[in-house]
Amino acid sequence: MNILPKALSKLIESFERLPGIGPKTAQRLSFYLLHVPQEELEAFSENLRNLKAHTVLCSVCKNVSETDPCPICADASRDGSMVCVVEQPTDVLSVEKTGRYKGKYHVLHGAIDPLNNIGPDEIYIMELTKRVRDGQPRVREIILATNPNVEGEATAMFIAKQLRELSTGNKQHVTITRLAHGLPMGADIEYADEVTLTRALEGRREYT
Amino acid sequence: MNILPKALSKLIESFERLPGIGPKTAQRLSFYLLHVPQEELEAFSENLRNLKAHTVLCSVCKNVSETDPCPICADASRDGSMVCVVEQPTDVLSVEKTGRYKGKYHVLHGAIDPLNNIGPDEIYIMELTKRVRDGQPRVREIILATNPNVEGEATAMFIAKQLRELSTGNKQHVTITRLAHGLPMGADIEYADEVTLTRALEGRREYT
Repeated sequence: MNILPKALSKLIESFERLPGIGPKTAQRLSFYLLHVPQEELEAFSENLRNLKAHTVLCSVCKNVSETDPCPICADASRDGSMVCVVEQPTDVLSVEKTGRYKGKYHVLHGAIDPLNNIGPDEIYIMELTKRVRDGQPRVREIILATNPNVEGEATAMFIAKQLRELSTGNKQHVTITRLAHGLPMGADIEYADEVTLTRALEGRREYT
Repeated sequence: MNILPKALSKLIESFERLPGIGPKTAQRLSFYLLHVPQEELEAFSENLRNLKAHTVLCSVCKNVSETDPCPICADASRDGSMVCVVEQPTDVLSVEKTGRYKGKYHVLHGAIDPLNNIGPDEIYIMELTKRVRDGQPRVREIILATNPNVEGEATAMFIAKQLRELSTGNKQHVTITRLAHGLPMGADIEYADEVTLTRALEGRREYT
């Protein structure tokens, strides 16, 4: 399509590389930006350029951060004996939004996925076990908050096994928990899938 | 959410300003870009910065272009006596994709929409009538290819009226046509709406 100006088709290509953005959306966004003031384009452009230069991975929890350690790890008012293990930095945001968790985090940056050649060494599992072994204050509870799918479950199982071996070797007890599975709030039992309903039955709690 | 690095939250904001990109998508795209090589980010950034500097509106047809006149207006092999009037530059791409149109274009950059304060003077209608009056070669047919919705129909009606007045004043005959409306290919008559079906009936053609 040589009738498109090169500046436009290049921008369309940049957008097309993003996940979930198809050719039509990339085209729509690029044409939209033609009507946007130049200052706004410059700001967008700067934000892209500076993204990686102005962010680091926190050396403690591996979360994306501006500072090292990150604000959560540096926050002395949070309970360092509790570590919530998540797959992605976005999962930290989701848990934070509940406003009910006052412990720390550990971000794996992925899940074990042999089909895509992602083994335990490709994600930050070793850093987690090291943290449990050497960290101050002592970690007493690990909450496994990986996703409830095949990869997330495999990752949770692998981590639990590693930590149990560590406990027996070290005589250091760490409680390992997993987020509850069951019916999401607002759901209809009629439309719940069997696996979710099975988990909801297994995890039933006394009604008070 | 002060736990997000500023560089990241600024980029999320930039994405959120785009049409059809909500907070969740903006977040997803920004976190994705953290894993992209810096060179690719720089390229994306450059493409945004250069978008407007490296594009102009063709002085003849008002299409977005790298050169003035645009490649289509400059193409002597295309029939300059036929002008297809569209609302947006993207519509030119759609018509070009058919590969069946060998005339020229005129891009209005919008449609008459009184509810949003867009009158005939806000879009390039005057430039079209001027082109019909003075243009070389003589324009003999105007194909109104505005969208088949309220705004597009109003725009088509307005332009047709303007051009008819011009014809009677100038004694210069211009054929005014409109794209056919009817059933889209692959459609089910059962699910066609009444308006489309009415148009399809009115526009029926002898079967050969």
